[in-house]
This record gives sequence, C-alpha cells and structure tokens, in this order.
Amino acid sequence: MHNYNVIGKNIKRVDALEKVNGTACYSDDITFRNMLHAKMLHSPHAHARILNIDISKAVKLPGVRSVITSKDIPFNSNLGEEKGWILAEEEVCYIGDPVAIVAADSIEIASKALGLIKVDYEILPAVIYLEDAMKENAPIVCPGTTTNLIMDKHSVRGDVEADFLRADVIVSHTVHFPHIIQGYLEPNSATAVYLNGELTIYCGSQAWHRLKKDVASRCGIAENRVIIRPMSMGGAFGGKSEQITAIVAGLLAIKTNRPVKFTRSREEDFYDSHPTVEMIVKVTLAADKEGHFLSRKTEYLGDVGAYGVAGTWVLGVASYRADTSYKFNSVEVRTKGVRLNRTPTAAYRGYGNQQAHFALETTIDVLANELNIDPSDLRLKNYISPNTISIHGYHISSCGLKECMHRARELIAWDELRYKKTENKVGVGCATLVHAAGSRAGDPEFPGDSALLQCDMDGKLTVWAGEAEFGQGAKTVMAQVVAEEFGVDVSDVRVVLGDTQHTPFATGTHGSKLTTILANAVLFACQKAKKEILDEITTITGSGMLEIKNGNIINFKKDVLMTLQEALREVCLKRSGAPIIVMGEYRPAAVLLDETGYGNLAPTYPFGVQAAEVEVDEETGRIYVKRIVSVHDSGKIINPQMAAGEVYGGVLQAFGFSTMEHLAVNNQGLLLGGTLLEYKIPTILDAPDIIADFIETVDPHGPYGAKSLGEPPIVSVLAAISNAVYDAIGITLNDAPFTPLKVLKAIKEKTKKV
Amino acid sequence: MHNYNVIGKNIKRVDALEKVNGTACYSDDITFRNMLHAKMLHSPHAHARILNIDISKAVKLPGVRSVITSKDIPFNSNLGEEKGWILAEEEVCYIGDPVAIVAADSIEIASKALGLIKVDYEILPAVIYLEDAMKENAPIVCPGTTTNLIMDKHSVRGDVEADFLRADVIVSHTVHFPHIIQGYLEPNSATAVYLNGELTIYCGSQAWHRLKKDVASRCGIAENRVIIRPMSMGGAFGGKSEQITAIVAGLLAIKTNRPVKFTRSREEDFYDSHPTVEMIVKVTLAADKEGHFLSRKTEYLGDVGAYGVAGTWVLGVASYRADTSYKFNSVEVRTKGVRLNRTPTAAYRGYGNQQAHFALETTIDVLANELNIDPSDLRLKNYISPNTISIHGYHISSCGLKECMHRARELIAWDELRYKKTENKVGVGCATLVHAAGSRAGDPEFPGDSALLQCDMDGKLTVWAGEAEFGQGAKTVMAQVVAEEFGVDVSDVRVVLGDTQHTPFATGTHGSKLTTILANAVLFACQKAKKEILDEITTITGSGMLEIKNGNIINFKKDVLMTLQEALREVCLKRSGAPIIVMGEYRPAAVLLDETGYGNLAPTYPFGVQAAEVEVDEETGRIYVKRIVSVHDSGKIINPQMAAGEVYGGVLQAFGFSTMEHLAVNNQGLLLGGTLLEYKIPTILDAPDIIADFIETVDPHGPYGAKSLGEPPIVSVLAAISNAVYDAIGITLNDAPFTPLKVLKAIKEKTKKV
Repeated sequence: MHNYNVIGKNIKRVDALEKVNGTACYSDDITFRNMLHAKMLHSPHAHARILNIDISKAVKLPGVRSVITSKDIPFNSNLGEEKGWILAEEEVCYIGDPVAIVAADSIEIASKALGLIKVDYEILPAVIYLEDAMKENAPIVCPGTTTNLIMDKHSVRGDVEADFLRADVIVSHTVHFPHIIQGYLEPNSATAVYLNGELTIYCGSQAWHRLKKDVASRCGIAENRVIIRPMSMGGAFGGKSEQITAIVAGLLAIKTNRPVKFTRSREEDFYDSHPTVEMIVKVTLAADKEGHFLSRKTEYLGDVGAYGVAGTWVLGVASYRADTSYKFNSVEVRTKGVRLNRTPTAAYRGYGNQQAHFALETTIDVLANELNIDPSDLRLKNYISPNTISIHGYHISSCGLKECMHRARELIAWDELRYKKTENKVGVGCATLVHAAGSRAGDPEFPGDSALLQCDMDGKLTVWAGEAEFGQGAKTVMAQVVAEEFGVDVSDVRVVLGDTQHTPFATGTHGSKLTTILANAVLFACQKAKKEILDEITTITGSGMLEIKNGNIINFKKDVLMTLQEALREVCLKRSGAPIIVMGEYRPAAVLLDETGYGNLAPTYPFGVQAAEVEVDEETGRIYVKRIVSVHDSGKIINPQMAAGEVYGGVLQAFGFSTMEHLAVNNQGLLLGGTLLEYKIPTILDAPDIIADFIETVDPHGPYGAKSLGEPPIVSVLAAISNAVYDAIGITLNDAPFTPLKVLKAIKEKTKKV
Repeated sequence: MHNYNVIGKNIKRVDALEKVNGTACYSDDITFRNMLHAKMLHSPHAHARILNIDISKAVKLPGVRSVITSKDIPFNSNLGEEKGWILAEEEVCYIGDPVAIVAADSIEIASKALGLIKVDYEILPAVIYLEDAMKENAPIVCPGTTTNLIMDKHSVRGDVEADFLRADVIVSHTVHFPHIIQGYLEPNSATAVYLNGELTIYCGSQAWHRLKKDVASRCGIAENRVIIRPMSMGGAFGGKSEQITAIVAGLLAIKTNRPVKFTRSREEDFYDSHPTVEMIVKVTLAADKEGHFLSRKTEYLGDVGAYGVAGTWVLGVASYRADTSYKFNSVEVRTKGVRLNRTPTAAYRGYGNQQAHFALETTIDVLANELNIDPSDLRLKNYISPNTISIHGYHISSCGLKECMHRARELIAWDELRYKKTENKVGVGCATLVHAAGSRAGDPEFPGDSALLQCDMDGKLTVWAGEAEFGQGAKTVMAQVVAEEFGVDVSDVRVVLGDTQHTPFATGTHGSKLTTILANAVLFACQKAKKEILDEITTITGSGMLEIKNGNIINFKKDVLMTLQEALREVCLKRSGAPIIVMGEYRPAAVLLDETGYGNLAPTYPFGVQAAEVEVDEETGRIYVKRIVSVHDSGKIINPQMAAGEVYGGVLQAFGFSTMEHLAVNNQGLLLGGTLLEYKIPTILDAPDIIADFIETVDPHGPYGAKSLGEPPIVSVLAAISNAVYDAIGITLNDAPFTPLKVLKAIKEKTKKV
C-alpha cells in the first residue's frame, strides 16, 4: 500500500469557503454598466402552427432594445439533424417551446414586452404520452419529420434463442421510469458582452468548449471570437450541457451592442429545460435452476422529447451498460426512441443507467423469488470477475463487486432484517450497479483530456483545464494530485477550470470522467514539470540525481538543496520571468463503440451495491426508507469526505425519484406541478439514513488506482427500494415514483388476487 | 526595405471600441456583493508628532467594519530603507500623509467615520522649499534620519579640468523645474477580495507583478496567495507604479473578510500621490570657438519628498542620460537628492529627462548666442554618430539625430521664422532629446521580458505578458507583431497583459520598453510557435520545407496545404486538445550601470528634435505657443497613427508644464491649487498645433528595426519653448512654467538692465 501525503485524505474543498460565506460569484451575480435584461416568450401550446408573430407593439415599448424571433438568428434550426431550433419557426412543439426573446432596460420592461408580442397559433393535435407516440394515426410531433420514431436499434450477442431454450426458468418484468428534473439549485443564467468583435459569455455549463462552438455557430461569428468565462455553478447533474441560455444572451448582445443578462426563472426551467428520458423497459431473464444467468432480452421505449437533444444518447447508454456487472452468455436488446410533444429530454446523473438498473435489478429479484434464492446470493453467483471482458466488450480491470455486496449485507444487517422479521412491515433489498469512468461517446476525435500545469516564480502551481467544476469537487481533486506530486500544500495549488481563453479544449464534464481521465492528465503534467524543473536545477547547480520531495529539491543523499519555491524562482529568473508550462495529456485505451454498441468505451469501470431498509405503512401506502447502505468500488478514494458527500447527494436524489419526484402532465401537456412548491424534492427532513462505504480496489488505469464516483451513487437505489418493499409486503413496485397512492393501489390489487 | 502586411500600418487600436463606447471596465466599475468602501484619513500638517490616535468613536459608528492604523499592518514601515510607511507611525511628514483607513458599508459612512477619528498632533517645524532642505539648522524632515540629504553622487569622466582650461568659451546656466502631477484621467482605485486564503485585487498599475510582491509583504501573506487582476486604466504616465491603494484595499479585505473597494478622490491624488521631482539644475558648458562641445559640469538638486519612493532613481536618470546626444570629451556631474516635508516624488513620463534636457538644451542656446552660431547648426555640429559609444557607455546603434534636425527645421520653417522676422514678437527654438528603450534600472535580475504565445485549436493566437496596457497601445503593437508573423488579421490575436495568475513575471512597464523589449519577446515566441506547428504538420502530412504565410501553411512550391486554423485544429487534436504554448524571451545585451553610472543600460536609444514657434505678448506676458514640430528617430514605426498619438499627447503634456502646470504650495506646505479647477492642465483649446514626424532608422536591436516612443515626445519641448522665447524677445526663461507673471517679470528685469 502506498503512503500518500494528500491522496486519500480528507482535504477541505478548495472552494468551500466561497460557497459557505456567499462570496462565490454565480452567473446572475455579475453585472455590467448599461446591461440589458432578457426575457423569453414560450409556447402555451403543446403543438401548434405559428401563423404570425406581431412584435410591433413590443418594440415600441420604451426601454425595449431588441425583440428577436427565429428569422433574426444566423443559424436557428438544424431540425434535419437531431437537434431542434433556438426559436420556433413553423410550429411550436411543446408547452415551453421558445418563440421570441426580448432585451430591455429592466426585467420589468422585458416582461411587459412579452405581453405585447402577439402570436397567432393554429392548434394542432399533440402526442403527450409515451404509449401513444407509435399508435396508428398518431399525430406527427414535429415538422419536417414523417415518423415519431427517432431511434430503433437492435443488437444480439451470443445465441439468445438457444440460451432461452435451455433455461430452467424465465422471468419477465416491466418497469416505468418517469420524467424527472435534475433539480439543480441555480436556474440557467448567462451574461454576454460583445466588444471589439469578440463575444464573451459569463455563465455556467458542463461543456465550456462545446458551448463556445455552439455559440459561435448559432450567433454567426467565428469560433475564435467567442470566450466563455465560467462562473460558480449551483449544480448541473447533466442538465447544463445543452442549454441555449448563453446562445440567446450572445445573440442579443451582438444585436444590441450592449451587455445582456438572461437569467431564467425556476418555472421556465421546469417547462423548458431537459428532464430525464421517460422509459418503459421490459426485461426477460433466463437462468438455470442454480440461478446462473444465461441470457437476457430487453426492450426499451424512451421519450426523447419534441426535438432530439441527447435523449437518444441516454437510451444508448441504457441499452448496454447495466449488463456489465454479470456474466451473461448472450443478450438481446431492442431500443426505441420516440418524439413526444414535450420538452426535449437529456442527461441526468446516471445517464440512462438509473432506468436500466431499475429494470434489470428488480427483475433479478423476481428471479430470486422464483428460484427461492436469496437475492444477494443470486447476484454474488453471477458477478463478473476482474480482468475479464464483458458481454459488450468492456475491459474490466478491477472489480470489487463481491466485496461490495458482502460489506453492504453486513452494514444493512441483511440476514437479521430479512430472515428474523417481526410483525411490522419492514423489508430489505439490494441492487448492483456499474458505471463507466468517462466514455468515448462524446466527440469521437477526443478520447482523453489535457491539462496545463503552470509553475510560477512565486512557487504557485496552477492547473488549467477545459473541464467544469459544478460542485462535484473536481478542483479539489486536481489540487490534491498536484500537491501529492510536489509534496506541497493543497493551498499552494490553484485550479482553473473552463475559461476558454486559456484552458485547453475539453469535450465537457460528463460520464464521471474527471477523477480518472483529467486527473491522469494532471498527473502526467506534474511528472513532466518535475523533470523540467530538476533538469534546470541540475544545469544551474551541477548536482544530478535530484528529486522533488515534500516541497524541496533533494539529492540522492536526501540532502535538501533548496525549496521548490527557491528552485522555481531560479528557473524562471533564468527564463526572463517565464513560468514553466507543461501539458499533460491522457488518452485512455478506449475505443468508439461499433454499430452494435460493442467496444471498450472507458478506461475503467466503477461498481457498487445499494441496499435499502424500508418500512411500509399499509394503511397510508407510505414507504419509509429508513436506511440506504451504499458501498462503492471506485478504486482508490482520493478524498473520503468528498466521496461520501457524492454518495449522500446521489442517494438522496435517487430517494427523491423513488418516492416522490415526477414531472407529471395532463393530457394537454401542461405540467401538473411546475414549481418547487408542487414538484416535491426531498429535504433533509425526508432523507433516509445514508451509510456510505468504499471497497478500495487499486485500478491500474486510474491515477493512484482511482476510478470514478460522480454518477454511481444515484444508480440502483430505486431498484433496492423496490426490492425491499417486495421483501416487506410482497408486492413488486414497477412504476416510479412509489407514491402512497400507487402503493395503496398495488396493495389493493394484491389483496384482490389473493 | 521590407514589405510588411501589418507592421507600419495604421491598425486600429484593439481596445479602441471599449474606450469609446464606455464598455471598458475600470477599477471603480467592478463591484461585488457585500462590498465595503474604504476612505483614508490624511495628515493636515506638513510635519507633526502623533501623540495619540483615538478610533473608539469611529469603530462604534453603525456600518463601520474596520478602522486600521499603523499598528494593524503586518509590514508597515521600511523607513530604514528608502521607502516610507503605509500609515504614519510616530510622525506625519507631509500634508496628505496617510494616518488611518476605514472600511464601511458605504462611502458616506466611511467618510463620516473619518471625522470621528481623533488624532492628537504636536506640530513640528517643517522644510517646505527645496532651497531650505540643506540649510544649517534645517529641521529633520522625517524620523529615524539624521540628515535631509538622501543622495549625493559625483562622477567624472575624462579630464574635465583640462577641457575647461582649453575651452574658448564657457557658459553657465541654471534652471528650475517644479513639482507637477502626471495628470492621469483616472484617480487610483482598487478592489480587493479575500477568499480561500487568496487575495485577489482588481486595479490599475504599471507593474502588476511587483505590486503582487508588495501586496504580499505588506499584508503579511505569501506571494503565491496574491493575484492581481488588471482593469482598464485611465492613464498612468509613471504615476501608477508605487501607489498603496491596492495594498490598503487588500489589508481591509483580509481584516474584514469582505470585498473592499478603495477609490481615491482627485483631491487625495493631488495631496498624496507622487508628483515629479522638483529640481534646480546648473549647467556649465565648455566649447571651442567653432562650437565643439568640450566638457560639461552639471549640478542637480532634487526633492525626493518626505520619504524616498523613486525620486533618487529619477535623479539618477537625470544625471546622465541627456549627455548621450552629443560628443563630449569629458563630463562631471554632482547630484544631490534631499527630503522635504512634501509628498514623495517619483516618475513622470520622461523620468528626469524633462528636467535634464531643460537644463542642457537651454544652456546650448546660451552658448549659441555667445558664439553667434545658429543653435540648430551648433547642435548638428556636436551630434553623436551611429555605431559609437557615448560618454556614459551607451552603445548607440542607430541615430537619426541629424536627419531629425533637418526635418524639424524644414517643418517649422526655421530660416524664415528666425531670420526674416517681422515686427511681432515671434520666435523659433529647437532642442534635442534622447531616451532609452527600456533600462536595466529595475530589478537587477531581470534584464528582459518574456511573453507566452498560445495557439488554440480554434485558430486564435493569444499573447500573455506581465506588462501593462495603460493607454499607450501596447496591446495593439503586440497584436501587430503576431499578425505580421502569422499573416493573420490583427483581430485573430488576443493580447492579455498583466493578470498575475497567468502572465509571466515582468518588472513593470516603465522606460519606454515594450515596443522594443516585450515586442522582441513576442517576436521570438512567434518564431518558436511557427516552428512547432510546422514540425507537427510535417509529421502529420509528411510534407517538409513548410512555411506559414498569409494565414496558410504552404510548401516550397507555394501550394497551400491547409489554413493555419486547420493546422492548429489538427495539431491540438493530436494533443488531446492542448494548445501550443511557447515562451518567447528577450534579454537585451545591456548591463547594470556601475557605481559611477557608466554602462550600456538599454538595447537601443531613441532620439528626436523638438522645435517650437512662439509669439510673446509683451504686454500681458502670455506666451502663445503656435506650433510644435516633433520629429523622432524611434526606428521603424510599428503603427504611424498610434505613434503620432503618442507624440500629440506627450507634446501637449510638456506644453502644459511649460506654460501653466505647477503644484505650488504655501509656506505651510498647503497646496495652492489642489483640484482640477485650480491646477491648470491644457485642454484641447489651449493646444498648439502639433506636427509629428518620424525619421525611420532601422535599428538592429529592435523588432523590425523599432526603437521606442513612449517617453520621448514629452522631453525637450520645454527647452524648445524657452529657446523660442529667447529668439522672440531676447530673454531666457529658466523657471518653469513660463506663466505670464514670470514672463512679465523677466521682461521688466531685462528692460531694467538695458
């Protein structure tokens, strides 16, 4: 076991203080002189033809500086491809679809101007529910298309039919996962300044450099005329990768030649951001009588929304990833994505893996019940081993699944809860999870990440990288890597993430990639910089065989020649003040998936087991989730406290959509609860007791053996709760969230059957 | 002659638009939530002992967050060395000396709190006038010292006595140059934020990296915990190198843990900034009868103010530089710097050269008069030649002085004005000037400058350098160099100057150095980057012998392989997104001066000739400066329009202190005009007709042959006007500014004598 100074230690987040004392500057905090405020007009109809937009009254309102509709946008629509338009052209296709934007001297004037824009609509039939999209004579959701089916993929690995023929037992189970929101604290906001032909946008994003490209193309200016400046972010959770806020602010800034702020209201983000993909998933599982999994057939039907944004990608991840935890002989998967007249769907922490694991991991319990095998034992029997290749071609280097399960059972008191039940309706359930540490799903040209390390004359070490800090703690992790490598204090390291004027290109912060992929790039940068410094010090002092240790330059006799700070001063002085700047690059040995979804898409894979203890009140239908034990194999843990924080947050979010969250609509597509008063997100008072624990494997591909942990904690909590409810009262809940109403209904149906 | 695309062209300033349309963000424009406002209490006495400071009432005022006096400052005083203290300790030594600072919720509260601070003073005798400092029994200006004489240097080169013995004519002349202010538009201002143990200061400065050091040591935190972020600056002219505004804001931010803004009033900057060094200069010049200069003796007496800030350095430059234009056999110089109970003096565009040239160049006209030689011919006879070493050891590479004089005479219509006079009191005068393109007077460790060039995937080229843009156009010049080298448009280049978080160390922007020293570093960076790009493209394409021309990669057959932008995309993609970053360094072959002031302190030297046409109203004493012809040998001119702008500005400033500007005090040290209403700075209506012209030598040490032009235009205008007045009415004005009162007095005295 390595002896680290900083790695594996509970280092305080480098941005803790600014978050706590309110000094952090969020997008809405920044202001400029002469700044205008923007407001957006959204469609009130789920589907309608736009006959006319009359802005004449709005533009005449004193204080209104610009009113923009689709025709004012240099590159508005790429409906031919997957994505939609910035502002609706011929039709509006969901309630909330943006129609016009106004920039005015104040928010009040801009709001008033919205009321003066007259849009004539011809209402068209709409498709609101997932089951209706493929019905015969279903209306076409969106203009320029002839079908609502946007994705239809089928892949088969191994001889599925033969495995099903020789199976001793076959179980089938269908689940439904609804639209839910990411629930970030800070609504989307951006402020744009157009100056000297250069557009600078201050905002939050998960993908600064891609946003730069998008802003440039949509606003019709050259890419190298755009700078994106990151502000502090109040969460993202996948929901801030494809927002148009920055584009709109940019368009208005160019149009008006004045700074423009566009901060969306919470209600706007409810109606017009990108919720999760609603899915109906059917799993059929074939096993032998000892419980060895033989084969699995899965059918996915998912809603990508009115326009494709990232829904098909999410369905792609859902299709394959959950199979990775187990040894399967064969699998078959059929995935259909359809359009609905609802807001486009996209990523949410877990990226389809919540839906896929809900389906598979509840089906496994159905099988366990059928075979009368303990569900945890059934999983243990089927877990994939380290150093193998999964059914979808993933190279599994480390895998601590068995240890995770044993630890989870121990921590939840599995045997006691399950087999020594008392009267009250208490139950325990478990579920497995797997995720990828980054993936090549993004820009095919960019498998990896790069980081600049700047070593300054004053001894400060600065990391510059194009990825995003949105609360997950990436800055702290990168600072820890540099501090470890140079033997300095974390506070001697500065980490700047995302300013596109200086940071190297990065595809964006998704897929739990930073602690593996970016940290590797930072690690390599440190190694290069240390070599450069030592070579220079050798030239200056004549001493060779030097090392950097504990912030000092030492020779082979362990004598301290000088401090690192002194060394940097010497070296930079020699270079007329120029700092040492090195680039670290890391490209995982990962490949793009082939047509069938096969291929090793990530450098390594984190695993975990969730276990839930529940008590069901059969009279009210309320499920009390008492404890969630969440045990992760995320390789070496860089910062235990922050890692536990990730687990607490992810589990709590999953608890939310397990028991209360649901973006319900009426048959006109209108939200039944489009505010935080009505859309219930758990508060700390609702929270179950969450126990986070880690099985620390040492992965050969991660820095110091680390894998990743960003998304895993949210995955499989839903299945574990469902399985625990079955253990408690013998009913299988398959329609999330498990609200008292649904639970009561299920109890009634079960009673009827009996 | 080279054929350049961008160099030598009238490229629009890259920061023109933001300055013109008001979008530029100056120090006072930036605000933070919860920001406090600071106000400073200044001494009302020229000299007094501080018996007690009672802040008890002030701290109790609601809204006051901190009151700081000297004892709260980690490193307040280094009076043992040259510099003073941040806040007065035992004594106050000039009217305006800072005593306490207050941070409060509003400026109003802070101002009110100042009135509640009770300071008990024991008034001490003060030294107000330069002539009094060295008098017997003169009071000691400042505590901890035993004499007011802070500098006393004497150097002799050649056999001065022998040259004086063989001289045919010896003339002697004494001039007086008063205190004047730099007259920048924007008073000093800084906003400080202390967060996560890191202090970030948003301000203006001429020396970002030195300021960082100063802030760190004064505030008692590590250097690598300080970031200085440059704001747009409303001028500096030497006056923003040693200001304490940023330090004070930083101290208060640390103390209160809240952002603090400290914007000084114009009045504060009048009383407590750093005006020029007041000097009395006596020149004795020895020549043969043909007018060949043989030797010169000069005595300088200058005021460094109550505490030394940079006054002694200014006196150092004054002592030697002006001799450079001429061939002298020998020189002797004696320089004394004294303390007065007045605000410390420091740099002003020209840095002592205005004073020195005033003395020498008026004395030359006295000699010309004595010898009855045309003063322009007398100068031509004595000019130093290119490729020689001056009396003080300067290596003169290019020198277009003769051509400058011929051009100036032509443009001012010298012969006509001088020798075909009509009735009215019109006169013409000329004066020579020399300056250095940068100098090693600063940090002895740093002879040069360095610049980072970042070539991004999107084709943008960004220069990062630690120097300052304060209006002189450095950003535009650097952008021109990069645009020229890559054959791209200036707008494809971004220039970031001064952010200490990313730019390499630089000593600061003084001494007209950027167009020579920094531009050379940028040029070398371009050459390195081009090589790196081409090597990579050779590796990728297999084609060798490539060149970058007009923004394209071309081969030896001049075929375009791809655009530079395409090439950068390829190369950066190959490096996982990392941009190409190279460091350009330039170290001039200059040395530190020896003890006697001997040595080649700069890579090259700009020269020039000023010629003035005046008309004197003998009844009112008013001098009408009708035209100033300002002809410069600044080597190759990078941007003629901007160069002319430098000349217009510098000449106008010099016209100001020739005719009206003067920081006069009464015998208590109180300013007789401490506002812009009373202290007269010329407006455009006062301005003479200014004709700028250039003799473009091609200097081997400058980029494209460029020398420098920042300071030269302000030098020797005063002498040219004085000489023109002599030509007009036969009196020699030696006491600047030449106000009507002084002119009338001189006329009266002359009449008396006659």
